[in-house]
Amino acid sequence: MKAKALTSKGTRDFNSIQVFKRDYIINTIKSSFNKFGFSPIETPSFENTETLLGKYGDEGDRLIFKILKSGNFKKNISDSTLLSDNLNLISTNISDKALRYDLTIPFARFVVQNQNEINLPFKRYQIQLVWRADRPQKGRFREFLQCDADVIGSKSLLQEVDFIHLFSDVFNSLKIPNCKIRINHRKILIGLSEVLNLKDELVDLTVVLDKIDKIGNEKVINEIIKIGLEESLKPILIDYLSISGDFKSRLDSLKKLFKSSVIGLEGVSDLFSIYDLIILDDLNSSELILDTSLARGLSYYTGAIFEVNASDDIDIGSIAAGGRYDDLTSLFGLNDVSGVGISFGLDRIFIVMDSLNLFPKTNNSTIKVLFTNTNSKYIKYITSAVSYLRKNNINTDFYPDTNSLKKQLKYANNIQVPYVVIVEENEFESSSFCLKNMSIGNQQVVSLEELVKILKK
Amino acid sequence: MKAKALTSKGTRDFNSIQVFKRDYIINTIKSSFNKFGFSPIETPSFENTETLLGKYGDEGDRLIFKILKSGNFKKNISDSTLLSDNLNLISTNISDKALRYDLTIPFARFVVQNQNEINLPFKRYQIQLVWRADRPQKGRFREFLQCDADVIGSKSLLQEVDFIHLFSDVFNSLKIPNCKIRINHRKILIGLSEVLNLKDELVDLTVVLDKIDKIGNEKVINEIIKIGLEESLKPILIDYLSISGDFKSRLDSLKKLFKSSVIGLEGVSDLFSIYDLIILDDLNSSELILDTSLARGLSYYTGAIFEVNASDDIDIGSIAAGGRYDDLTSLFGLNDVSGVGISFGLDRIFIVMDSLNLFPKTNNSTIKVLFTNTNSKYIKYITSAVSYLRKNNINTDFYPDTNSLKKQLKYANNIQVPYVVIVEENEFESSSFCLKNMSIGNQQVVSLEELVKILKK
Repeated sequence: MKAKALTSKGTRDFNSIQVFKRDYIINTIKSSFNKFGFSPIETPSFENTETLLGKYGDEGDRLIFKILKSGNFKKNISDSTLLSDNLNLISTNISDKALRYDLTIPFARFVVQNQNEINLPFKRYQIQLVWRADRPQKGRFREFLQCDADVIGSKSLLQEVDFIHLFSDVFNSLKIPNCKIRINHRKILIGLSEVLNLKDELVDLTVVLDKIDKIGNEKVINEIIKIGLEESLKPILIDYLSISGDFKSRLDSLKKLFKSSVIGLEGVSDLFSIYDLIILDDLNSSELILDTSLARGLSYYTGAIFEVNASDDIDIGSIAAGGRYDDLTSLFGLNDVSGVGISFGLDRIFIVMDSLNLFPKTNNSTIKVLFTNTNSKYIKYITSAVSYLRKNNINTDFYPDTNSLKKQLKYANNIQVPYVVIVEENEFESSSFCLKNMSIGNQQVVSLEELVKILKK
Repeated sequence: MKAKALTSKGTRDFNSIQVFKRDYIINTIKSSFNKFGFSPIETPSFENTETLLGKYGDEGDRLIFKILKSGNFKKNISDSTLLSDNLNLISTNISDKALRYDLTIPFARFVVQNQNEINLPFKRYQIQLVWRADRPQKGRFREFLQCDADVIGSKSLLQEVDFIHLFSDVFNSLKIPNCKIRINHRKILIGLSEVLNLKDELVDLTVVLDKIDKIGNEKVINEIIKIGLEESLKPILIDYLSISGDFKSRLDSLKKLFKSSVIGLEGVSDLFSIYDLIILDDLNSSELILDTSLARGLSYYTGAIFEVNASDDIDIGSIAAGGRYDDLTSLFGLNDVSGVGISFGLDRIFIVMDSLNLFPKTNNSTIKVLFTNTNSKYIKYITSAVSYLRKNNINTDFYPDTNSLKKQLKYANNIQVPYVVIVEENEFESSSFCLKNMSIGNQQVVSLEELVKILKK
C-alpha cells in the first residue's frame, strides 16, 4: 500500500524561500544575543519524562509528546494496569522519554547537570524546536522554533534592564517599528491578591486578569466577584483596573494601593529600579509600558514578567516574552539560583515581517548561473567552466540532461536563476560563452575570465 | 520528588565551544551545497507513522521512535489486542506519529506532497536531526545531525560525477586531507550474484561482502559457501575478491567477469562513464577508488553507491555516503523519478577534525570585553559605555552584581574573555576606562573612543 504524502497534523514543510527568511530572522536574533554576551548551547530533543512532567501545570503535562519505549514496551506493566483507565500510569510505564515542551526546563536541567563546568552568572542562548500536542489552528503549530536567552545566577535587576534593551535591539535590527514592551511583576499580582483578600485565589485571579484585552473591564470584575471578591473590596479592584498614565505615575498609583502589602510594594520598588536604569535611547522605536494586567501563564515566574507586541495595527499576540524565575534549578536539586529569561517566537515574528514587507530582497534562486547542456559533445567544456566558476565561489549549476534549449530555458525561468550560460557550436569552437541575463533578456558572448568578472559582481 | 538532572540515554548536551565547532562544519558544508546549486528545505521532526514504516527494512522499523497519541491513546484499541503479544499492532493503534529516521524518506514525501511547486530536476539540501533507537555506544547516538544533498528527476550520470566533486569540495574546504571516496554500483553486486548463481540471495551476499574489512577474504568465501555458492563457481568469487589495480583496470577485470551478466555490464558501463567525466583536479587530495566490496545497507539504492573515509590513520568508518535510488517517490505514488543523494555525518567529521586539530583557533568566549561593577555609583556610567560598544557591534557584557574586583577578575578569567574594563573612582571622575588585556595582563587607561578603536581590531 502506498503511504499518503502528507505532513503530520500541525507540522509544516519549509521550502528554500521560507528557510532563507527564517534564517534571516534567526541570524539577526543570534547576532543580538552574541552582542549582549550570551553563548549558544544545545540540548537533546527529548528528555527523560521525569525531567519534563509536572513543570508546566496539568494543561502543560497533557500537551507533552511522549515517546513509546523501544523494544517490548509492555515488559514492565501488568495486564490490570494496561486495562485500567489510568492513562498517566500506563503512559509512564510504556514511555520513558518525551519531546521538550520549551527550552527553559531543559536549560535548568543543563545547568544542574553541568554545574561543575559552568561559571555563574551563566548566560546562554538556545535556538531549537519545541513540540506541543496542541490542537493545530491558524498560527499555532505542534512543532515550532523558540529563540531563548537566559541568564542564571544573578539577582541583579540590571539583568531585567538588559533584557529590555535586548528586546529593543532585536526588533530594531529586524526593522520592526513601534513595538510595545509590556512589563509587570509577579509581586504586583500577589500584592493585588492580598489587598483584594484573594491570596489563595492568585492563579484564578491572574487567569481572569490576563483576559482583559479580550473581555473588557466589566466582565473581568464580574468574574473576580465569582472567584470570591467581597463587595466592600470592589472599589480597590476598580482603582487597580483604572491605573493609567506614564510608567512612573502608574507606579505611584500602585504604591498607594499597596500600602498594606509588603510584597506588592517590593514589586513596585523593583519596577522603579528597573525603570530608573533603562537607557531610553536604547529603546529605539520600542515603548516600555507598565501593564498591570499582564499575567503570563507559566507558574515558574517569580519577579518581573515581559511580553512584547508589535504595533497596534498587527494583532497576532505577543512576539516575545519572558520573566524572572527564582530557584527553577531547585527542581533538579540545585538551590538558590535565580534566573531571568526571554523567548522570541519565530513564527509570529515571521508573520509580522511578511505583512510589513520587511524581509530584504533576495534572489529566489540559490544559484547565480545555470549552464545549458544541449549536446553531449560540449559536456566536458561545460563542466570545466562550471568547476572554474565554483572555485571562484560563484554558486553555479548545469542542466544535467541533454535536452532542447527551449526546455532548459523554461526550467531556468521557473527556478528564477539570474543568469544562463548557453554553449552551442559557436561558443564551443571559439572557447567562449553566451551569457544571458534572465531578467532583462539580453545576451553577450564572453570569455571565461569575463564570465567570472560579471558574475562576481 | 526532585528529578535527576540527566540527559536521556544516547543523547547529548552541547556547550558553546562544541556548538561553535559544529556550526563551523555545518556552515562549510552549507556553503559547498550552495556553490553546487542545492537549495535548503526543512521537514518536520515527526511524520505520520505510515510515511516511515516499511522503508528501512525490519531492523530499521525497530529503530524508529514512535510517539504516543495525545489524549486517550487507548480509545481505538480493544482489550484483547492490548493484551496480545502483537507489539506492532498495539503500537500502530496507540501511536500515529514517529520521529524521522533519516532525511531521504521525508524528502521523497516532500517531493510528492509539493510536486506542483517544485521544478525537476530538483536539488535540495537538508541539515536536520534524525533519531534512531539504537543501543548507544561510543560514537553512536540516538539523536544525531545529518547533512544531506539530493537531486531528483534526472537520470544523467553527471549527477554522480558532481556528487564526487562535491565530496571532495567539502573535505577540501574543511582541510581534511587524503579522503578515500569509494564507489561501487548495485548492478555490479547484482551481476556478481548472477555469475555466482546466487540471484535470490543478493541481500545475504551483500551483507557478507560488506564485512570483508572486518573478517577478511577467507571468511567471506566460507560464508558465501554457506549461503549456497556451488563449489564449481568458487573460482569466480575468488577472481572477484582479488580484483585490484587502478580504477580502469578494476573495471576491465569486472567486464571480463560479467561476460554473461547484462546487468553487471550495465553497472560497469555506468562506472566507466562516471570515471571518464570526473575532473581529476577537482578531487584535490581525495582519491576515487572502485571498491567492489562496498555494499551499503539501505535497500533503496539502485545505481552507483558511495562511501567516503578519512585517511587510513583514522579508523572511524565512513564520514559521508550516498547513492542513486530509482523511483523512491513511488512509495508515495509518484513514479519514474530517479534520484541521487549523499549524506555527511557531522559527529564523525567532528571526531576527525578534532583528532587532526583542524578547527580554526577561536576565542572560547562569545564576548570580547567584560566591564567590572564594584560600586552601584558607577552603574549608569558603565551601562552607557556598554551600550555604546554594542552599538559599535562589539560583543560586550558587564558583571551584574556589585562584588569584589578580585571575584570579578576571577570570573573573567574563568570565562576566558580577552579584555576586561575596570571602572573605579579615578576612571569615573576622569571619564576614562582602564582596559586590561587578560592574556598578557597589561593595563591602559583610555577614552571611550579609544576603547572602541582597540576592541574593534
